[in-house]
Amino acid sequence: MRIDIITVLPELLKSPFEASILKRAIEKGLVKVHTHNLRDFATNKYKQIDDYQFGGGAGMVMMIEPIDKCISKLKAERDYDEIIYMTPDGTTLNQGVANELSLKENIIILCGHYKGVDQRVRDQFVTREISVGDFVLSGGELAAAIVCDAVIRLLPGVLGDETSALTDSFQDNLLAPPIYTRPADYRGWKVPEILTSGNTPKIEEWREEQAYKRTKDLRPDLLDE
Amino acid sequence: MRIDIITVLPELLKSPFEASILKRAIEKGLVKVHTHNLRDFATNKYKQIDDYQFGGGAGMVMMIEPIDKCISKLKAERDYDEIIYMTPDGTTLNQGVANELSLKENIIILCGHYKGVDQRVRDQFVTREISVGDFVLSGGELAAAIVCDAVIRLLPGVLGDETSALTDSFQDNLLAPPIYTRPADYRGWKVPEILTSGNTPKIEEWREEQAYKRTKDLRPDLLDE
Repeated sequence: MRIDIITVLPELLKSPFEASILKRAIEKGLVKVHTHNLRDFATNKYKQIDDYQFGGGAGMVMMIEPIDKCISKLKAERDYDEIIYMTPDGTTLNQGVANELSLKENIIILCGHYKGVDQRVRDQFVTREISVGDFVLSGGELAAAIVCDAVIRLLPGVLGDETSALTDSFQDNLLAPPIYTRPADYRGWKVPEILTSGNTPKIEEWREEQAYKRTKDLRPDLLDE
Repeated sequence: MRIDIITVLPELLKSPFEASILKRAIEKGLVKVHTHNLRDFATNKYKQIDDYQFGGGAGMVMMIEPIDKCISKLKAERDYDEIIYMTPDGTTLNQGVANELSLKENIIILCGHYKGVDQRVRDQFVTREISVGDFVLSGGELAAAIVCDAVIRLLPGVLGDETSALTDSFQDNLLAPPIYTRPADYRGWKVPEILTSGNTPKIEEWREEQAYKRTKDLRPDLLDE
């Protein structure tokens, strides 16, 4: 898989890809992530990539031309399955979207910044708009990093233990059950006895019950799906 | 405002706070962000902070003792309004939660990693559990950065233009209307005439209509709230 990220702040995206699972996935050659500085595609000598809104109002708008140039350059080099725009009014990211994206070969992620991109970028170039949630960020960069993290960890070979992702929250529309580790007694707070019983079938039964109970208490909407 | 982030991967959180609005907010003294490496609070010579699950199963669990030590140290230094745990089964972050957190003075954000923390950490120390969405990440670090971004940009003085945040999506349960900038005609794709008319009251009316229409089309659920 190859991910091209178009951004006005490539430096913001540095450390997330140089640590932990994303770093390992890149080093193993399981994914390639390239960031492109939109300013390199500016057409005037001021390296301008944003301008005032037509019709007035606070906040700058990302111009269409540098984005067009960057996307055109990438598309000339290879085919892309999706050109994704990160925006608070996109489709909300969920595990299903992450699973789906993990099957793609080449994707472009365009990070919105300031008030967002010129609407014509969305109308003409973008194939999918994704939001990470109902809140506003100072830019789409962290949202793009979130998408990359959620997707890349699903690629075969990325997680050390293949079974680990399958027992995560959401993969079966249930939240994960409570988990405990040593010590069994810490300051008088004990782990549930069942977990130290060694009775594996009973433990599995308890976990299923707990996962269901937690989902019913905290996120009953997941059970309706 | 002061935010203390407890993490096993402080290096992952480096660049998001060294760029853009978060950097500026820190430099202006509007917010202090401290990251704490959980490994510094490990109690054995292997700097161990995770261990196997009681009851068996894939994935490691973050131990209670190093977390207890780190939180205790911080709480001895000052009072905290919230101890937040980033976890996929927490309350989903939205603009209302971000607005609420932006009024707090001191908060701790504990980043889950691996399969998450020992349940006793959640039962005993955590005051609020937040998820950034219905998907699983390789750790809570990017989610914590998202919370910080959403919250810090709301602090007075952080955004250059005070009115800008108020016209964002979600602040009034409506998505933002389409925006355009120069050129007015790009490859034959034109901006709506109304926006270049100079008729401000008509432009405002058009924007309200568009915001309502976009919300109705894309996110009718927001209109029900």
